[in-house]
Amino acid sequence: MKLYCQKSYLTNALNNVSHALPARTTNKILEGILVEVKDNEMTFTSTDTNITVKTRIGIDGNGEADFVVPAKKFISIASKLPEEEVILEFDNEKSSLSIKSGKSCSHLITFPADEYPKVMVQSSENPISLNKESFRKMIRKTAFSASSDEMNGVLTGVLLEIKNKMIKMIAVDTFRLAVYEDPAETDENVSVIIPAKLLTESSKVIPDEGDDQLHLSITDNKVVMDFDNNRVVINTLNGNFINYEKIIRRDGTIKVRVKKEDLLASIDRASLMATVQTNNLIKWTIKEDTLEMNSLSEEGIIDESVEIIKEGEDLNIGFNYKYIMEILKVIDDEEIILHMKDSLSPCLITPLQGEKYLYLVLPVRLN
Amino acid sequence: MKLYCQKSYLTNALNNVSHALPARTTNKILEGILVEVKDNEMTFTSTDTNITVKTRIGIDGNGEADFVVPAKKFISIASKLPEEEVILEFDNEKSSLSIKSGKSCSHLITFPADEYPKVMVQSSENPISLNKESFRKMIRKTAFSASSDEMNGVLTGVLLEIKNKMIKMIAVDTFRLAVYEDPAETDENVSVIIPAKLLTESSKVIPDEGDDQLHLSITDNKVVMDFDNNRVVINTLNGNFINYEKIIRRDGTIKVRVKKEDLLASIDRASLMATVQTNNLIKWTIKEDTLEMNSLSEEGIIDESVEIIKEGEDLNIGFNYKYIMEILKVIDDEEIILHMKDSLSPCLITPLQGEKYLYLVLPVRLN
Repeated sequence: MKLYCQKSYLTNALNNVSHALPARTTNKILEGILVEVKDNEMTFTSTDTNITVKTRIGIDGNGEADFVVPAKKFISIASKLPEEEVILEFDNEKSSLSIKSGKSCSHLITFPADEYPKVMVQSSENPISLNKESFRKMIRKTAFSASSDEMNGVLTGVLLEIKNKMIKMIAVDTFRLAVYEDPAETDENVSVIIPAKLLTESSKVIPDEGDDQLHLSITDNKVVMDFDNNRVVINTLNGNFINYEKIIRRDGTIKVRVKKEDLLASIDRASLMATVQTNNLIKWTIKEDTLEMNSLSEEGIIDESVEIIKEGEDLNIGFNYKYIMEILKVIDDEEIILHMKDSLSPCLITPLQGEKYLYLVLPVRLN
Repeated sequence: MKLYCQKSYLTNALNNVSHALPARTTNKILEGILVEVKDNEMTFTSTDTNITVKTRIGIDGNGEADFVVPAKKFISIASKLPEEEVILEFDNEKSSLSIKSGKSCSHLITFPADEYPKVMVQSSENPISLNKESFRKMIRKTAFSASSDEMNGVLTGVLLEIKNKMIKMIAVDTFRLAVYEDPAETDENVSVIIPAKLLTESSKVIPDEGDDQLHLSITDNKVVMDFDNNRVVINTLNGNFINYEKIIRRDGTIKVRVKKEDLLASIDRASLMATVQTNNLIKWTIKEDTLEMNSLSEEGIIDESVEIIKEGEDLNIGFNYKYIMEILKVIDDEEIILHMKDSLSPCLITPLQGEKYLYLVLPVRLN
């Protein structure tokens, strides 16, 4: 088998499959990438058995072949090829893939394709079509709020709900919650829990350009995403998600309207004096049209002041700055509303109007 | 004491002194920066006792003060100040420095200045004036070749030689050597060994802009560099430097003229298959007008080919790619000459003409 392809397509495809390579594995073959050549297409597959990425590129050449090639070496060689035109040649007898470009020629050992696990599944016949850009955005807005502690079971996942022509992602950890929703042009109903880490990896495969649509299928404990020349398959989490609507109490009478960038910049500075010993505590004193903020350590104090428009009582409340910061960093709006009740009740963060997104953070008890 | 200064000057000064902060120390006071205010100037000093950096900025305000302030916090607070105008206020009774900018106000605890060690020395009355840019360049071209093994004594240093209106820096490790020379407009003679790591740190303080000159003094086991608003003092190394001229044998009859970028790019690719087990070996086969290069591991082979103009015999020779790469990365010339004798003798690297720079690398013995 001998074929010609473009370096930029090759490196892009390898970058995509790199997101499913196992960080550590005792199964040697999973350190490789499965390569299949057929009908002027070259398909690359990698998996850590929980997430699988398959991506294909067009090639010039004929013949069929399939083999497994060491992933790390293939990726680093491809990224450094001197010219855009690449010639790949597979020698079945010698179990060798040669990669030629300009005056550079590499030979990589290969392994038989039939040693690679059969992990890929078919998508359903009637997948749900979703807006690709919206889907990727929702992952960025919610997945960070899921638990990173494997002991927390379903809370390490993002709940994906599609119903009433709306798509919603929800992530909940011990001290916070994130909900984001967008319209979806489908009559289907879906409720599935996808591991947050793997969902985030999949979002890195979703390109800016290309098709508008992403096609989603749910089949026996797997979610299948098809977009452009890629397929991503993730094992879903079994179990019942927490009844998150019950956690969200909308009884706060204090509403603070604030410029997101001002609040973020002040927290960023105040965070310099926050310490792990105090649970990363920053204190807020909300009074009239000002949110005073301060943090304290053995080495000093930082005082910040942010302009606000307030409804309701004054309030003293404390937060672990990391939780608030992570939320503010994924919000694109210029202004937001903080909804609070008292110094022990959760703070809700929403847009000025409606609840396209809703974040909840538990405060830190003040002494 | 209350004074006004510019954020950009303050952060620049703090960045300069950061290069002399100890990485680890049991002497708590050295984790601070000594700040002295007098005559519309503010001076910052830090030291790890082997290198001292002192830098000053102009300020607006009056009064005198001196105190020590926690370095890490001061540096990170300054870098995040919201506005260019900064107000610093020192309260001696409260041992507190306040840093105000816009709506942000930080208070840092301070320590008495007299707890800070007296490390700064005077420069000599007749320092040697050198071209600042040339001095910084020479450090980049040589210091990387010094030994990083503290057991190697003077070889962890760079030999600075000034004589016959020439300035020279020389660094030698077990497997390599670097020499770089420039004209110097001075009649002085100098021969001093400066720790390579600290010399490299000092070069990071030397700015692109500002004065053309750097003033060098050697006083009792210290080298003092004055430039712009900075003074850097480094403890020199005692001992006799190796007789490096003796190591450099100019009896190679094989001369290879090559484009530096071509050679570097090929080594960069070939390095992907080089392994620690083989001492990072890449093999060169020099034949007629081609330098063939290859590297080998369990996972495959990389073959590279570089155009050359050769004088002398053909040759097979092997190198630890890291040594060659580090040299090529600091050479700015488009073309260079490799001088070789046989597969066991060192390779010399020089410009097309003369020996403004000379690098030497020992080959790896081929099996």
